Amino acid sequence: MDLTKLFHPRSVALIGASAEQNKLSGRPVRYFREFGYAGRLYPINPKYQEIAGLPCYAKLSDVPGEVDLAVITLPASAVPQALAACGAKGVKAAAIISSGFAEVGGEGVELQEQLQRVASEYGIAVCGPNCSGFVYVPEKVTASFSVGLHGGFPQAGPAAFVSQSGALSSYILGAARERGLGFRYWITTGNECVLSFTDYLQYLLEDSEVRLVLGYLEDARDGAAFQAIARRALALDKPLIIMKTGRSEAGAKASVSHTGSLAGADEVYQAVFTQNGVLRAESLDELFDLAIIAQAARRPTGKRVQVVSISGAAGILMADVGAEAGLEFADLTDATKEALRKIMPPFASIANPMDVTAEAVARPELLRQAAEVIVKDPNVDNLVVFYGIVPGAHEKLAKDMAQVAASTDKLVMVTWFPLPEPEIWQGLAQAGVPVFAEPARAIQALGKMVRFVEARNRFFSRQPDATRKDNLVVGSEVERIIAQAKNHNRKVLTEVEAKRLFKACGLAAPRGGLARSAAEARLLAAEIACPVALKAASPDLPHKSEAGVIRLNLSSPAEVERAFDDIVAQVKRWDSAARLDGILVEEMIVGDTREVIVGARQDLRFGPVVTFGLGGIFVEAIRDFSVWPAPLTIDEAREMIRQIRGHRILTAFRGRPAADLDAVAKALCQLGEIAAQWREQISEIEINPLFVLPEGLGVIVGDALAVLK
Amino acid sequence: MDLTKLFHPRSVALIGASAEQNKLSGRPVRYFREFGYAGRLYPINPKYQEIAGLPCYAKLSDVPGEVDLAVITLPASAVPQALAACGAKGVKAAAIISSGFAEVGGEGVELQEQLQRVASEYGIAVCGPNCSGFVYVPEKVTASFSVGLHGGFPQAGPAAFVSQSGALSSYILGAARERGLGFRYWITTGNECVLSFTDYLQYLLEDSEVRLVLGYLEDARDGAAFQAIARRALALDKPLIIMKTGRSEAGAKASVSHTGSLAGADEVYQAVFTQNGVLRAESLDELFDLAIIAQAARRPTGKRVQVVSISGAAGILMADVGAEAGLEFADLTDATKEALRKIMPPFASIANPMDVTAEAVARPELLRQAAEVIVKDPNVDNLVVFYGIVPGAHEKLAKDMAQVAASTDKLVMVTWFPLPEPEIWQGLAQAGVPVFAEPARAIQALGKMVRFVEARNRFFSRQPDATRKDNLVVGSEVERIIAQAKNHNRKVLTEVEAKRLFKACGLAAPRGGLARSAAEARLLAAEIACPVALKAASPDLPHKSEAGVIRLNLSSPAEVERAFDDIVAQVKRWDSAARLDGILVEEMIVGDTREVIVGARQDLRFGPVVTFGLGGIFVEAIRDFSVWPAPLTIDEAREMIRQIRGHRILTAFRGRPAADLDAVAKALCQLGEIAAQWREQISEIEINPLFVLPEGLGVIVGDALAVLK
Repeated sequence: MDLTKLFHPRSVALIGASAEQNKLSGRPVRYFREFGYAGRLYPINPKYQEIAGLPCYAKLSDVPGEVDLAVITLPASAVPQALAACGAKGVKAAAIISSGFAEVGGEGVELQEQLQRVASEYGIAVCGPNCSGFVYVPEKVTASFSVGLHGGFPQAGPAAFVSQSGALSSYILGAARERGLGFRYWITTGNECVLSFTDYLQYLLEDSEVRLVLGYLEDARDGAAFQAIARRALALDKPLIIMKTGRSEAGAKASVSHTGSLAGADEVYQAVFTQNGVLRAESLDELFDLAIIAQAARRPTGKRVQVVSISGAAGILMADVGAEAGLEFADLTDATKEALRKIMPPFASIANPMDVTAEAVARPELLRQAAEVIVKDPNVDNLVVFYGIVPGAHEKLAKDMAQVAASTDKLVMVTWFPLPEPEIWQGLAQAGVPVFAEPARAIQALGKMVRFVEARNRFFSRQPDATRKDNLVVGSEVERIIAQAKNHNRKVLTEVEAKRLFKACGLAAPRGGLARSAAEARLLAAEIACPVALKAASPDLPHKSEAGVIRLNLSSPAEVERAFDDIVAQVKRWDSAARLDGILVEEMIVGDTREVIVGARQDLRFGPVVTFGLGGIFVEAIRDFSVWPAPLTIDEAREMIRQIRGHRILTAFRGRPAADLDAVAKALCQLGEIAAQWREQISEIEINPLFVLPEGLGVIVGDALAVLK
Repeated sequence: MDLTKLFHPRSVALIGASAEQNKLSGRPVRYFREFGYAGRLYPINPKYQEIAGLPCYAKLSDVPGEVDLAVITLPASAVPQALAACGAKGVKAAAIISSGFAEVGGEGVELQEQLQRVASEYGIAVCGPNCSGFVYVPEKVTASFSVGLHGGFPQAGPAAFVSQSGALSSYILGAARERGLGFRYWITTGNECVLSFTDYLQYLLEDSEVRLVLGYLEDARDGAAFQAIARRALALDKPLIIMKTGRSEAGAKASVSHTGSLAGADEVYQAVFTQNGVLRAESLDELFDLAIIAQAARRPTGKRVQVVSISGAAGILMADVGAEAGLEFADLTDATKEALRKIMPPFASIANPMDVTAEAVARPELLRQAAEVIVKDPNVDNLVVFYGIVPGAHEKLAKDMAQVAASTDKLVMVTWFPLPEPEIWQGLAQAGVPVFAEPARAIQALGKMVRFVEARNRFFSRQPDATRKDNLVVGSEVERIIAQAKNHNRKVLTEVEAKRLFKACGLAAPRGGLARSAAEARLLAAEIACPVALKAASPDLPHKSEAGVIRLNLSSPAEVERAFDDIVAQVKRWDSAARLDGILVEEMIVGDTREVIVGARQDLRFGPVVTFGLGGIFVEAIRDFSVWPAPLTIDEAREMIRQIRGHRILTAFRGRPAADLDAVAKALCQLGEIAAQWREQISEIEINPLFVLPEGLGVIVGDALAVLK
């Protein structure tokens, strides 16, 4: 959809405009006038002859010239007709600020459907309804009643902001000025009856003047579009900074738009964010912090950071927070240390963090001199400087660090606590040095930006085709298995079918087969020639442990026969109506194995996702698992495995050999591929346990579950 | 030590004072003059006749009257003599600002020892050396050169601040003004050659005008004193808010005073903080946030919070953060809901968080009306209100909420984003309503304050005597075991000895005994009459699994005899020099048991601490364990058990009965008691595994380790 007329209107009709400047319907016209919009303005309201010195028209069709954008503040019931009038007049963009639509239910839903039909009929790009409108800063298009404009026009800058909240966004606009954040776009999406959160993101990313995009998000709606946009943002090096709320039960209940299942929904968002380098802001402070570091022209070139501080304690605080944020505090080279020793007072510690001591108050140039040497050190990717109160020297300190930053390609950041006079720190910020008021927050922002750069590098090094070809599975066999179950009107595959499905994808299953009599079971056990396990094969018993229909470690023919009869009896006891296809006889997996769980399911928003966790009760009791959007690359699968807390258990540990994690990673890719290729057919698949043999020896499917849609 | 003369001097000598007002040595005299100290001032410096209009004396003995406090800014080498002169003159308090002492090593260490001797000889209370001095606000005692005073005198308030950092503390002083935090004391401790961090805390808590104490801490040095002070702070309801740094490797290296072992040191600090309700600030922002909520006259009466917001999104953000901070978002009663429905616009959601909607801009009184109803609801412990930009109504909003707060005993807090004009929000704060600029931070501060109140309640309900009497152990037997090992010059007890020790404390051990021959082993096994385990009993093999000298689940006499011989051979192979006391024959613990690890050790700073974790490799691989200072109450032991992530594994879970956690808690108390009573003899004890039987059936010592000092 073309948004040109929305953001670059040559003329604007204000439908329902009021002469009362402080009313919701009076504010847009006032803002357009006050902030100097250069196009033509047409207030539309039969009650007035003129508003704010502009001729006021009784109806839109009375307007003599063309209208590019309509800003509608009428009562909800009058809006569909007004939008139709826009269509008739050839208006191609509208901001509908009025509320009383889908958010109130009942009649409102019907009104919103009318809007959608009208917009679609005439091809109108609609922002809203039930929103605070939008602002396009360069052309002073203030299609909004936001109180965020009450204190003045927003500072211009490289940020675009898109929000699923009205009020909070206004306050963010209001707060941005004192935090030194400038905007190009400020957009509230409202009910998204035509244009959605992702539509705006897509448009904004392609504006070459936009360098970062901020968002407040409750529901991404079109998960696939969101993922594509996040990847595009990575490609363009335009950080996407999102505050996503609604993860708690109370928060989710309060988020009207939240329709996804709560459990797991936030984990999937987080996985999508992690995969695509979306920077998640956990607070309003962090939203600004990330914006400040993202709007800098420099990116971190690595995760090594050298801290130079006018306070030892601030340096230690930054080291503590930085270590937790995944940053490294590398040693300077000996050459650098020697050079610093010549500059620094004898008591200063030439270390990381480095404390310049109170001597900096007497000789503020020490900080610049140290910084100049340090940015040349090959062990340093980023320099973070901590400034405090240095009476009389603030201007000089700011100029000094701007000069150091200009002499290097590395990221140079300043934490200044407390912030000096605004002219001074803002001047430094304008010179390309991000300035933060709090050391812990500065370091956390740097940590997240390092992860953005890492995600970007991963993105460019990704060779999805090579990996995916490996994971391509024999489709005909999978389709045959699915069709067969569907023919029998079964949603849950039997264990035998599920194992066949995974086998078709190249995953090893234990040797064995289905026995229909105790004698057959004995024969099968003899063939396998090692201890066996017996389990009921029934479409009605997906949870076999609970039902008590598994017998393990049977080594004699007599034991096997007895176990067969036992299981048949137990199935009857547990659920007399349960169908029994037979008893599965399988080799016991012996040797030094670990058990893990691998699975895939269709997320309501983001489609196929893969999950991984340790086997046994730990995944559930400790909630130690990882989630990743599918399909995934082998490197991403490896990252998934590393993400769980219990990862060390799978490595060479306490004398045990490392588990074959490459085989696990491959299995995760394969499950992702199945879930992605058959997303319309398969709702959930799981291997629990997947036996993992020592390095090089592969994995074996222990038990398998597949649920169709 | 009496600190009266330090903080309430009637006369001050400024030894080494300079007439150059911006020099370190010129600033104290300038600050005393500028801010209006009412006592007598005597600059001492042979170079001047007069400084800032005051007669300057060549030496201290020339001063005609008595001197209560000396502020010394001389070069390090001249300080011991100057302090001796103070002693001779009868000066009982000194702030030594000069640096060049222990922090520089070498000669500095010697100089500091001289200071200590002089101070001790004359009984002088010394602040420093190598510090930024201190300020006592009510009497305008500015014994400091801090640049934090450059911008003006600190606002007076109920907070005391004590810091092991100089520079950062100055910046905190400078930043406090704009954050609305007022001080009564501001103290930097420096090298603590006489007065330590804990000495100041102890003094400050007893000042009835001090209502909260803030600290920057790198090393508590006297852990026992710190714990006693933390408990005193709880008793007095004076929150102790501490920023403790140095937990990362880089941070610990940079922290000069950090002498404790890094591993585990921070966990122990955290445990001491948790036990005693010390509020830990993770950033400078949080230090201020916690101070703001702590200085309020009200405390949370529970963890249930109702959020009322002018922005839906801000409400959701607060619910997300609050849930993670342990707060509860309870439902309002039906009566309250009905009352609110009459007040609120039809579209407002009467929920928690509650969104008053944009209607609040047109009718700001809605927020007060809603709040008045809500604070009366029995399901609400605390009310958090989110305000934004409401043009023209800020003064009214502030007054309204001050009025609501005055009508209730519950804690009422406001988050105002962005903050309105300072007069407005500071007025609200002065009316007893904590005001925060950021919703996530406000909620986090509330969450921590709830934990302070909980710790306080625990403190008052603690009946240490009753619990400790239960845990009192048969000392004579323990002492006999320790003495015996010492006689043999052994630091590590044998398993047999360690088990006897735990048995003496009332812990059950498996049946069995020490066999010195295969035949003896067979006899013992026959006596036990169930499957047995055999293990080498050797003082030289503390890690038996690794050495391969354990055999489990032996049921026949032949197996037992074979295992005996096997183990003897394996001991020889593993370590031919290892002494072998015999082979331990013990019953196998069968049934539905879980394995946990319980232990106790002597922490360098805080003395005896108890640790708890799941058995197996999980404690190490997942680092899932808890630590608590000993001795501990049964409730604290239960809390320790709940603290681990894998706690659910020990409860009734997936069809298994709950483990006997009361018995585990009791064992933790007992270990704590042993470590506390024999802190001079025992360095470490551990039971790994401790077998936990189902509820009511107790625990059994699996393997036991005890290391003497």
